[in-house]
Amino acid sequence: MTNERIVLSSYPQSQPRAEDFTIDVADARDPGEGEVLIETQWLSMDPAPRLRMNAGSGFPPPIRLGDTVPGRGVGIVRATRDPTLREGEIVAGELGWQTLSTVAASQLRRVDPTLAPVQTALGVLGPSGITAWLLVREAARVRAGDTVVVAAAAGSVGSIAVQLAKLAGARVVGIVGSQRQADFVRGQLGAAATVDYHSVDLDAELAATLPAGADVFLDSVGGRLHESVLMHIADHARIVAFGYISAYHLGSAEQPEYGRIYQLIRRRAHLSGFLVGDHAALFAEAVRDLATLLADARLCNVETVSEGLASVPTAFAALFSGDPVGKQLVRIGKVP
Amino acid sequence: MTNERIVLSSYPQSQPRAEDFTIDVADARDPGEGEVLIETQWLSMDPAPRLRMNAGSGFPPPIRLGDTVPGRGVGIVRATRDPTLREGEIVAGELGWQTLSTVAASQLRRVDPTLAPVQTALGVLGPSGITAWLLVREAARVRAGDTVVVAAAAGSVGSIAVQLAKLAGARVVGIVGSQRQADFVRGQLGAAATVDYHSVDLDAELAATLPAGADVFLDSVGGRLHESVLMHIADHARIVAFGYISAYHLGSAEQPEYGRIYQLIRRRAHLSGFLVGDHAALFAEAVRDLATLLADARLCNVETVSEGLASVPTAFAALFSGDPVGKQLVRIGKVP
Repeated sequence: MTNERIVLSSYPQSQPRAEDFTIDVADARDPGEGEVLIETQWLSMDPAPRLRMNAGSGFPPPIRLGDTVPGRGVGIVRATRDPTLREGEIVAGELGWQTLSTVAASQLRRVDPTLAPVQTALGVLGPSGITAWLLVREAARVRAGDTVVVAAAAGSVGSIAVQLAKLAGARVVGIVGSQRQADFVRGQLGAAATVDYHSVDLDAELAATLPAGADVFLDSVGGRLHESVLMHIADHARIVAFGYISAYHLGSAEQPEYGRIYQLIRRRAHLSGFLVGDHAALFAEAVRDLATLLADARLCNVETVSEGLASVPTAFAALFSGDPVGKQLVRIGKVP
Repeated sequence: MTNERIVLSSYPQSQPRAEDFTIDVADARDPGEGEVLIETQWLSMDPAPRLRMNAGSGFPPPIRLGDTVPGRGVGIVRATRDPTLREGEIVAGELGWQTLSTVAASQLRRVDPTLAPVQTALGVLGPSGITAWLLVREAARVRAGDTVVVAAAAGSVGSIAVQLAKLAGARVVGIVGSQRQADFVRGQLGAAATVDYHSVDLDAELAATLPAGADVFLDSVGGRLHESVLMHIADHARIVAFGYISAYHLGSAEQPEYGRIYQLIRRRAHLSGFLVGDHAALFAEAVRDLATLLADARLCNVETVSEGLASVPTAFAALFSGDPVGKQLVRIGKVP
């Protein structure tokens, strides 16, 4: 059983090139207890493995030179030492870029070939589709009437997200990188408009297609595109960052300009802008609660007081360059 | 009735200086219908008016040179042409930096002098306290066991937020700018630890005080501090940005490096990092739903297929530099 596999032969400097990889031939490993031998039928091309092709340390850890490149695939079970998978069954999982792989059965998902063509387990009925569905339904909760911007709208996740957002009643603006992608996203997927991220006047194009701002932005790109769309969001916009392909070649967190999005994604953090005026309905409750805490001496109130109108400019300047402690006040002092 | 007022005489270049302001004397304007004349007792010193002291256009609009500087205050009603406010009552509102002001009664809030000292209507029982309460209770929903980082912890909002977070059962780390502030925040307010943002090794100090990361970050500062704390957040952290005092002198949105936080706050946007693996419980539902949509032809599935293992490196590289449309797949083609 001879396995052909693709190994990483050099770390790409920026965009990956075909020359960074070589084909290698070796015997397949016999399955151990609980493992199966799989013959690959389909491989999925996804950007994420690029993150593991940077020489530096980091998260995720880099692929070693000479190792098989990781990647998801669909294949057929050719030998089994696991009671749950039979020879001839179709499975999906992390097979790597190779023709034969030996994988723990517990890491594989059975694919039903009568449901849809088996390769859809890698796309629309697999990670790409699931991601798009979760983004639209769970993370951004797209509603009828929303204007939704989808980054990389022609891609595997984006092309499904555009359609699901549209089915949810949203107006969709797709970000694309070529006329061919624009035609696809408008013509086949039904987006209301597209914007090419290469545009020399990206800002004006976004302004024209988003006159009332974006209610939702599904962003797998990061970088300049992220910053640009941010300037055209509507009040209470929901932005979901789930990738940052513009920076996958930068070695992730080591580059401060991209560390931010990387960190928000890795930590599944929520960063919200807050204006107190939005919450006027709660002001009275807040004051009642604070007054009670103050009266019970469970809250201490510290004030720094300067005297007279003439002291105002100095007191104001001290907020920025000084060492303020507690509430800064000026007593004007004309009345008792 | 002579009014002394402070006018803006020059736009501060960076930090405001006392020389940017002058005192001016003029007659107070008689109240019109629905207005009252107020004698100022207290003025609140807040950073926000600094945003209106930048010469460029923008949001909020700049104060004109020679105009009275805006600012909140507490005062006593000296003359009234409104049926809801009587002479002698104490009110709080936007009075400006002056000894007498003529203001619409509808813009004022009555202050009860028997409840607490009247100046607390500007601080702990006013905008500062209300903001801190809303941040802790509503925006970040601080819970027992959370580790909460409070920027500008010695300030008017921060000093209340530290205490409210602690009352909610959180461990609080306060960001300060001096030893005096550190002593205040730990000794009087009860924070577990403080970090001085001037520290040459801010990152190491944050790492030491946040070994398990911050669950909540209440940020009124932005800039370098924001980026630094972001590197020390826990999974699913809630970050609430409600100010960016580090950049108030930069003319807000005109400076791209600060435009981001400015825009998130102005739009009250929610930016979330998303990892699909967190939502495994919904995968089966997603696939069922997607399969139905596909079967009903309400979803189109577009695949771009290349042939054979040898084509993988080129297909992968095309994800980054090419013009992909739909799901990119490689057919290995060893089985039917």
